[in-house]
Amino acid sequence: MKTIGILGGMGPLATIDFLGKLSKAGGPDCPRILMDLDPTIPSRTLAILGKGIDPGPRILAGIRDLRCRGAEVIAVPCNSAHCWYPRGIAGAGWLNMPRAVSQALRCYPRVIILGGLATVSRFLYSDYLSDAQYLSPDDNESIYRLITDIKLMPAPSMGMAARLAQIIGKYRDSCDAFLLACTELSIIWPTNERGECLSFAGTPVVDSSWEYAKAVMAKARED
Amino acid sequence: MKTIGILGGMGPLATIDFLGKLSKAGGPDCPRILMDLDPTIPSRTLAILGKGIDPGPRILAGIRDLRCRGAEVIAVPCNSAHCWYPRGIAGAGWLNMPRAVSQALRCYPRVIILGGLATVSRFLYSDYLSDAQYLSPDDNESIYRLITDIKLMPAPSMGMAARLAQIIGKYRDSCDAFLLACTELSIIWPTNERGECLSFAGTPVVDSSWEYAKAVMAKARED
Repeated sequence: MKTIGILGGMGPLATIDFLGKLSKAGGPDCPRILMDLDPTIPSRTLAILGKGIDPGPRILAGIRDLRCRGAEVIAVPCNSAHCWYPRGIAGAGWLNMPRAVSQALRCYPRVIILGGLATVSRFLYSDYLSDAQYLSPDDNESIYRLITDIKLMPAPSMGMAARLAQIIGKYRDSCDAFLLACTELSIIWPTNERGECLSFAGTPVVDSSWEYAKAVMAKARED
Repeated sequence: MKTIGILGGMGPLATIDFLGKLSKAGGPDCPRILMDLDPTIPSRTLAILGKGIDPGPRILAGIRDLRCRGAEVIAVPCNSAHCWYPRGIAGAGWLNMPRAVSQALRCYPRVIILGGLATVSRFLYSDYLSDAQYLSPDDNESIYRLITDIKLMPAPSMGMAARLAQIIGKYRDSCDAFLLACTELSIIWPTNERGECLSFAGTPVVDSSWEYAKAVMAKARED
């Protein structure tokens, strides 16, 4: 099996949640995992808003460092960070999260993307899902506030899941699936014993973190 | 805050469980965490039985590597690995797990140590808890088999907790607390929302992984 490298900390709780999913996807036969959980990587949201430092150089340096230490499959469990995924050249081992997650969404014609400001305002998933849909600007704002609150909370709570349910309630008949396209949202949505998200009133909810974990583990197991 | 280094993989699921506890102990304000989860570190049990390679050099090399990369507080979330903790010299940033966990046990005069073969046969906790007690050889054997089974399972199950409860049932009136002195046992015992283990028929159950997580986070926060 190949060594997995994880550049995390965007945010920390989401990275640890992703590790749990990675381990669930892998079962008892676990590859070596090198992780750099660095909460000081500059905010992706502030950078997109033009109010903060560009996180790109730090993300690429972190990936280079993991690769130098022997990581062969590199995961960055943060959708927004993929606004800085190198275009036109190979990602040098960095497995593209929106691309990998989109593979799992092919059976749903209309998917609503629930994500952070960087993911949504850059239409990150539209490159891989031509019919990707988004919430209204007001509802997206509510999602951004929810993500900020999740980053500040000590532990997941059902109250947060209820807030998310309230925001997306009116869209459930106008799509075939919801995508949790922010790893903070992945923390709060309830799952079954196999780690799959519970549906929302019959509409499937797909977790980008879980789909990415499965793709990363599959890549680590490739010959 | 100081950078935390984690040498894990002994076993992988226990390391990821420890990371969750570390994050719970830290709250939203998380330090940088460097992790090397290396499932290929030789078995501590086989080494103690004289049937396997000495894991000591690999453990010490892993710690040295984490330190070189900037880790200031080093955690090895595996009790048995502490049979190789360097005696007589400073642990070079490696926070001694049995010593840290024993601090949290001072209020219990009689503690029964539930651990793996290396931890139990070397009386690892007796250096720090003079009245540490152990199960009968037969019951220890049952614990070792349980630990092996936990390492092989895809995810924690209540059936495993029930097996542990059955083994320790007859000791509950002869001690003041049980210590889960193997991080595999820490995975299966049920906890409350704050991450503390549920008691067993009124007798406290203390989790070495959780106590170590709190000690590591406290150390990272020291000036």
